[in-house]
Amino acid sequence: MKEIHVSSRKRNEMIDITNIVQQVITEVKLADGFVIVYIPHTTAGITINEGADPSVQQDLIAALQQLVPEHQDYTHAEGNSDAHIKASLLGSSVTVLVKKGQLVLGMWQHIFFFECDGPRNRTVFIQPQESR
Amino acid sequence: MKEIHVSSRKRNEMIDITNIVQQVITEVKLADGFVIVYIPHTTAGITINEGADPSVQQDLIAALQQLVPEHQDYTHAEGNSDAHIKASLLGSSVTVLVKKGQLVLGMWQHIFFFECDGPRNRTVFIQPQESR
Amino acid sequence: MKEIHVSSRKRNEMIDITNIVQQVITEVKLADGFVIVYIPHTTAGITINEGADPSVQQDLIAALQQLVPEHQDYTHAEGNSDAHIKASLLGSSVTVLVKKGQLVLGMWQHIFFFECDGPRNRTVFIQPQESR
Repeated sequence: MKEIHVSSRKRNEMIDITNIVQQVITEVKLADGFVIVYIPHTTAGITINEGADPSVQQDLIAALQQLVPEHQDYTHAEGNSDAHIKASLLGSSVTVLVKKGQLVLGMWQHIFFFECDGPRNRTVFIQPQESR
Repeated sequence: MKEIHVSSRKRNEMIDITNIVQQVITEVKLADGFVIVYIPHTTAGITINEGADPSVQQDLIAALQQLVPEHQDYTHAEGNSDAHIKASLLGSSVTVLVKKGQLVLGMWQHIFFFECDGPRNRTVFIQPQESR
Repeated sequence: MKEIHVSSRKRNEMIDITNIVQQVITEVKLADGFVIVYIPHTTAGITINEGADPSVQQDLIAALQQLVPEHQDYTHAEGNSDAHIKASLLGSSVTVLVKKGQLVLGMWQHIFFFECDGPRNRTVFIQPQESR
């Protein structure tokens, strides 16, 4: 298990961590299998989506804000209930296949840390697993 | 693969199963790897979120009810279409890393069975996997 | 890792791939473990839901369309921002347990490729993993 760190600068922000995940796979010499990318946070998510056109990220962030408004009749007193709700909609991990040492991603797929309550310093755990 | 059972008492309810998952890991003596927590149901989900302040669960349940109303122009005749929709938004499994025999969870993270069509008796499958 | 192909015929469509996934497990003689079903696309998802009554699929497709309208003030110029957003809500993979050579699915559970920007020819990767 490898631990990496990312820092968000906005309240809502998608941070592309694809290269970092690939680097871990290369370092541990994982040939064929998969990798689990896991975050130990409850106000952020992990998601795979298009990385080429930044407008996709913009639309995704805006759509989630519209679905789950920041201010509403929430009972949790910390003012970040929206972030907790988004975390459960996005999920706290993704699993990505690995073949011949490379992440098996589609042409447009990138792996994103999805900050919902930034700016914060965040942790991502990366667990490579060889297949038989 | 271990099978455990939970009983929900409300239509919508988050049941904390963190301790049960940890117990299985301890029983099977899993040292390093991960665990898959899977539910064989289509009207419930599995999610990881804050376990310290119960108001987070209250807000999450209310937000999902608002996003996916119980009564609407659904075609499915059983009256639980909202539960099926929530099941796909939440997901039917989570994968959690394990290190030195302990679940690698963040300070606030708990694993929840998310009932969307209770009260019911439910099953959870827990599959520990050692890493190499 | 096995690669299969599906073709969608509508813009939004759930395609049942349960039998194909089971066939791969049988072919590779996986006895006990799990299987990762992964799609390399950013405008589709993978989900597990009820396969018996097609009205559940109809309600699920309609609910997602209502939550994430096709036409709105999106910035992404390709006209499929809704599909990207749904992809992150649904997720790009599911993990299903396998016991004695059979998918461990609940009575109503089927595995669906969830097309959000069809019709298209699509790819699904299936990665069986034996457990110890």
